Amino acid sequence: MIVVLKHETSKDQQAQLVEWLEQQGVKADISEGTYQTIIGLVGDVSQIDVDMLSMLDIVQDVKRVTEPYKKSNRKFHPEDTVIDVGGAKIGGGNFAVIAGPCSVESEEQIVEVAKRVKAAGATLLRGGAFKPRTSPYSFQGKRAEGLELLEKAKEATGLPIVSEIMNENHIPLFENIDVIQVGARNMQNFELLKALGKLDKPILLKRGLANTLEELLMSAEYIMAGGNEKVILCERGIRTFESYTRNTLDLSAVIALHEMSHLPVVVDPSHATGRRNFVRPMAMAAAACGADGLMIEVHNNPAKALCDGAQSQTPDMFDDTMKAVMRVRKAALEE
Amino acid sequence: MIVVLKHETSKDQQAQLVEWLEQQGVKADISEGTYQTIIGLVGDVSQIDVDMLSMLDIVQDVKRVTEPYKKSNRKFHPEDTVIDVGGAKIGGGNFAVIAGPCSVESEEQIVEVAKRVKAAGATLLRGGAFKPRTSPYSFQGKRAEGLELLEKAKEATGLPIVSEIMNENHIPLFENIDVIQVGARNMQNFELLKALGKLDKPILLKRGLANTLEELLMSAEYIMAGGNEKVILCERGIRTFESYTRNTLDLSAVIALHEMSHLPVVVDPSHATGRRNFVRPMAMAAAACGADGLMIEVHNNPAKALCDGAQSQTPDMFDDTMKAVMRVRKAALEE
Amino acid sequence: MIVVLKHETSKDQQAQLVEWLEQQGVKADISEGTYQTIIGLVGDVSQIDVDMLSMLDIVQDVKRVTEPYKKSNRKFHPEDTVIDVGGAKIGGGNFAVIAGPCSVESEEQIVEVAKRVKAAGATLLRGGAFKPRTSPYSFQGKRAEGLELLEKAKEATGLPIVSEIMNENHIPLFENIDVIQVGARNMQNFELLKALGKLDKPILLKRGLANTLEELLMSAEYIMAGGNEKVILCERGIRTFESYTRNTLDLSAVIALHEMSHLPVVVDPSHATGRRNFVRPMAMAAAACGADGLMIEVHNNPAKALCDGAQSQTPDMFDDTMKAVMRVRKAALEE
Amino acid sequence: MIVVLKHETSKDQQAQLVEWLEQQGVKADISEGTYQTIIGLVGDVSQIDVDMLSMLDIVQDVKRVTEPYKKSNRKFHPEDTVIDVGGAKIGGGNFAVIAGPCSVESEEQIVEVAKRVKAAGATLLRGGAFKPRTSPYSFQGKRAEGLELLEKAKEATGLPIVSEIMNENHIPLFENIDVIQVGARNMQNFELLKALGKLDKPILLKRGLANTLEELLMSAEYIMAGGNEKVILCERGIRTFESYTRNTLDLSAVIALHEMSHLPVVVDPSHATGRRNFVRPMAMAAAACGADGLMIEVHNNPAKALCDGAQSQTPDMFDDTMKAVMRVRKAALEE
Repeated sequence: MIVVLKHETSKDQQAQLVEWLEQQGVKADISEGTYQTIIGLVGDVSQIDVDMLSMLDIVQDVKRVTEPYKKSNRKFHPEDTVIDVGGAKIGGGNFAVIAGPCSVESEEQIVEVAKRVKAAGATLLRGGAFKPRTSPYSFQGKRAEGLELLEKAKEATGLPIVSEIMNENHIPLFENIDVIQVGARNMQNFELLKALGKLDKPILLKRGLANTLEELLMSAEYIMAGGNEKVILCERGIRTFESYTRNTLDLSAVIALHEMSHLPVVVDPSHATGRRNFVRPMAMAAAACGADGLMIEVHNNPAKALCDGAQSQTPDMFDDTMKAVMRVRKAALEE
Repeated sequence: MIVVLKHETSKDQQAQLVEWLEQQGVKADISEGTYQTIIGLVGDVSQIDVDMLSMLDIVQDVKRVTEPYKKSNRKFHPEDTVIDVGGAKIGGGNFAVIAGPCSVESEEQIVEVAKRVKAAGATLLRGGAFKPRTSPYSFQGKRAEGLELLEKAKEATGLPIVSEIMNENHIPLFENIDVIQVGARNMQNFELLKALGKLDKPILLKRGLANTLEELLMSAEYIMAGGNEKVILCERGIRTFESYTRNTLDLSAVIALHEMSHLPVVVDPSHATGRRNFVRPMAMAAAACGADGLMIEVHNNPAKALCDGAQSQTPDMFDDTMKAVMRVRKAALEE
Repeated sequence: MIVVLKHETSKDQQAQLVEWLEQQGVKADISEGTYQTIIGLVGDVSQIDVDMLSMLDIVQDVKRVTEPYKKSNRKFHPEDTVIDVGGAKIGGGNFAVIAGPCSVESEEQIVEVAKRVKAAGATLLRGGAFKPRTSPYSFQGKRAEGLELLEKAKEATGLPIVSEIMNENHIPLFENIDVIQVGARNMQNFELLKALGKLDKPILLKRGLANTLEELLMSAEYIMAGGNEKVILCERGIRTFESYTRNTLDLSAVIALHEMSHLPVVVDPSHATGRRNFVRPMAMAAAACGADGLMIEVHNNPAKALCDGAQSQTPDMFDDTMKAVMRVRKAALEE
Repeated sequence: MIVVLKHETSKDQQAQLVEWLEQQGVKADISEGTYQTIIGLVGDVSQIDVDMLSMLDIVQDVKRVTEPYKKSNRKFHPEDTVIDVGGAKIGGGNFAVIAGPCSVESEEQIVEVAKRVKAAGATLLRGGAFKPRTSPYSFQGKRAEGLELLEKAKEATGLPIVSEIMNENHIPLFENIDVIQVGARNMQNFELLKALGKLDKPILLKRGLANTLEELLMSAEYIMAGGNEKVILCERGIRTFESYTRNTLDLSAVIALHEMSHLPVVVDPSHATGRRNFVRPMAMAAAACGADGLMIEVHNNPAKALCDGAQSQTPDMFDDTMKAVMRVRKAALEE
């Protein structure tokens, strides 16, 4: 960490700051320039409160040299983390496809979708039971019953299952769920993250709509610091001024997260774009740039055909998407 | 709600959509233009899933005409809501100043700050006990002990107290806290909002860093739908590309929220700007444009002078800020 | 266009508005709902000033049903536009690769780079002569001399050439340049766009850092309205809060622009990410999702090896990128 | 400037970099930490290309210590710049109010508005002659004729006049215009800025919709580097995800720009919010936080009452706004 002092800082103020910094357990190296004095901090700077330091009257700027994330940092763990979910591997060259409906609606629906996505090549089944909805008047999901229906679909197909949690008090209900998802709106619900850090179960952590990649890794760090190192990162679009798509899918995040971290990175083109016909090309793009997996909404309800309209693909569209994604992925990996 | 159909929609598809819409309990009026067909929906459209509807193959666009928020909507409640917190009123012409340290550190600290801010004119005391921190390795607050220290400061000064909650399981600990604050990162922690909706206690709800004003009101709606209508809205800066200030304080939100809603609106210039010397002018600006109150960080620790540097004001600075704010507010209200 | 009136609008006000609207040459259909009155405008609504209309006291909202862009709109021109630049075709299934250095530095440099990128498969050569720089103290490009050096590289390799213009007064200097580029910062320099609309030469129009796709098409419309319909759109990243990459590459823009418009869309991963090692994977992703071409910075200067560090690829890296891009593109197009 | 080297940098690479840096005319001080090596650059670092440097393979990060703006920098010019426009002073405690219609429409209109705004206390008259419009099909302003009409209003009232330029070729037409305005979309039209730098006339430079404050000062620097130091900065809202207001007015920019620069800062609440009823409270807020002036749209057209609806205030509203602004400003300045 580097502390740049203001030009007018007195020797006394400088000494007082150095003393205080050293009390925090770091070593302070002073470089006096003709114009500017710079203090380089060496040691365990993770204890230093950057916000506080940067606002001191005598401090012009504080610049971090090392990243604040440790357990998720590729520097300290150069090889890719591979997460095994009941045989479905994610990361380190293993590509996972998580597919299924936005909401679990009935046993028939979820079992039927599970069979179709498995046949198309999906390796995990997703389904929403607890649904975060902007409006309190919207359908909030089938909750505990939805989780039970998911388990039936797992029995029927063998696919490991993924579902979103919204409350640490619901953790016992997720005992038979293979991967617990933390949604974008809860990415910085630190109390929930701490509780999940005590489990021995993979966590799929979605990036918040306005969160930086560093913040995403800091949230992963909350889970990992508790002892649970099985974290799957998920890029699902960020909020920008552009309104043609629901959010802006940031595919550079795949490359960036692979540089910064050893954790696997999956991409959710369904929520990112909010448009069914964007899912196939964006899934292909994600595969081309090295994502470790995809998360795609697939819905099947022939009796209520209107519901197909949303961002969900039909099973037939998903078949076609999977073929295209696999062709592109193969081509991308060839040498 | 208005549904614009695509040009190529067949009569059959149109009839099927109308039938489905009417099954949802709304009336559908069709206006066929030479170029475009438009369906106007009349009735309780809050049950219609706009996202789903807008993604139907035959639908070009869905445009809401009425707002999705009801209980917080000024249309249905034209007069300002006034919230009384142990005698300190907020809203409807009553100006509240909530001041205190970012974190409660010790009894001496919080009692001393409470006395100073009361003397300067603050009407409520704030102090953080549970601290949401980006890093799991940062200080997480004194937690339950912090709340007890706050209560001592209340006893010493009579000021009602405000503190942030991060977990619904902590609600019992907040029994003696007068206003429960929901932080920006938890604005869409819907499970927490629902739990707070069952209390009979004012909730201070901060706008998320990337949340629209409509989303803020929808989160207020979660609390109000549960029966707790005592919601205080707080603008505390949004995330933009500008990095000179920590966030961008959106003062237009004060005017907008007053148009949209009857709930009181307070402004937090300390967190919004992250810079101590921005607090006074931004507080003055907030008072000038009609905010119902302010939330300001004030810290007092002569023995550990370095801590004064952050976004917190010293008690002396706060005295001066209060005088300026009150002068501006008086001038703004004169006719 | 749909005008939603406020609830309290009187019959007189409504009649006055309808009269005024019809004076503007459009037909106004009134639908009176129990709660809301809606006016549908039919005819040439491009003359109506939406901003003005939407701010009228009696108007709650104005919602456009048709797009404001005409000549660039796919609705009125369903087949893809193919632009032929001296034999290099762009659009309608023709993939173009525009490569070359950020700045033209010398004849040796530009000719050498041109040969290398041609050998690797590039179809056009780019090189900056007039350089938009944030600082007036930075190198501003070799200007007219740079254009002459580019022409020499064209003579040596046969590659058509692309260079950026910053001032309509420089148009005569671009006589022998095959494609004139308008940079992101000039996307809404309407006077420049109008001047380019009078030429018979392809224009490569880059999206501004904070411009919507609709605004990009409106800027294309400025060029096309003048008679020059040869516009190539370029996605080059938008400005967001994320700072790991220079900008956020919005690949969904490729799909969106192909829906909205018949114009070809190329992607510039070099400027979007600002990081050399992001160029290959992002170029692959762009090819996977259907971009009509790429724009890639390639620099070759063995004597001044340090310069290779920026977002530019070396010719060897570019060789490798081209192979990967072509493999992915082939796989993406297979059925 | 500080260069942080990657951990794996060899001594040879380090020496090569230092040699190259010193060839650029700066002195390089090396601090070797146990974990990280840091190079501090001393001297005229404005010649160093930060982008290029930061992308070198061996460089982890480059951190600027000094600002890239010089002539606009308050460090080198501590006292406020005061700009005198025909007797109307701006900056250094002098408050300017620039008011008038979005577009000049006729002699009657502009003269009438000029009289009304002068009576209310405005010190300069604004009026658009060349109008930047998103659509080529929208009214583009009365152009040269509009400037002549403005001059007539100046003759009638004595108010100095402000109008926007879009093209350096139009400079001769602005001979009698007292302040030339550069609009948000042209903030980085560097060729235009350079041309304006050669004039001896105040320039009102608006912040671009997605430009940082540093970029705004760098654009001011383009004008000042040419010799014209009479630059007035204007905050007029930035583009964010919030859509209730047209843009988000960033009032913290007033404080920030006053810290960074000695140039005067005016605020345009009309364009920032796009809503007539937001203008008065936002103008009051701007006055409260220390803006050096305001720019407000005022339109007067009793015969065409519908036009009053836009973001423009009527003269009566402006009278009231001016009274409130002056009261607030007086209160804000009291001690």
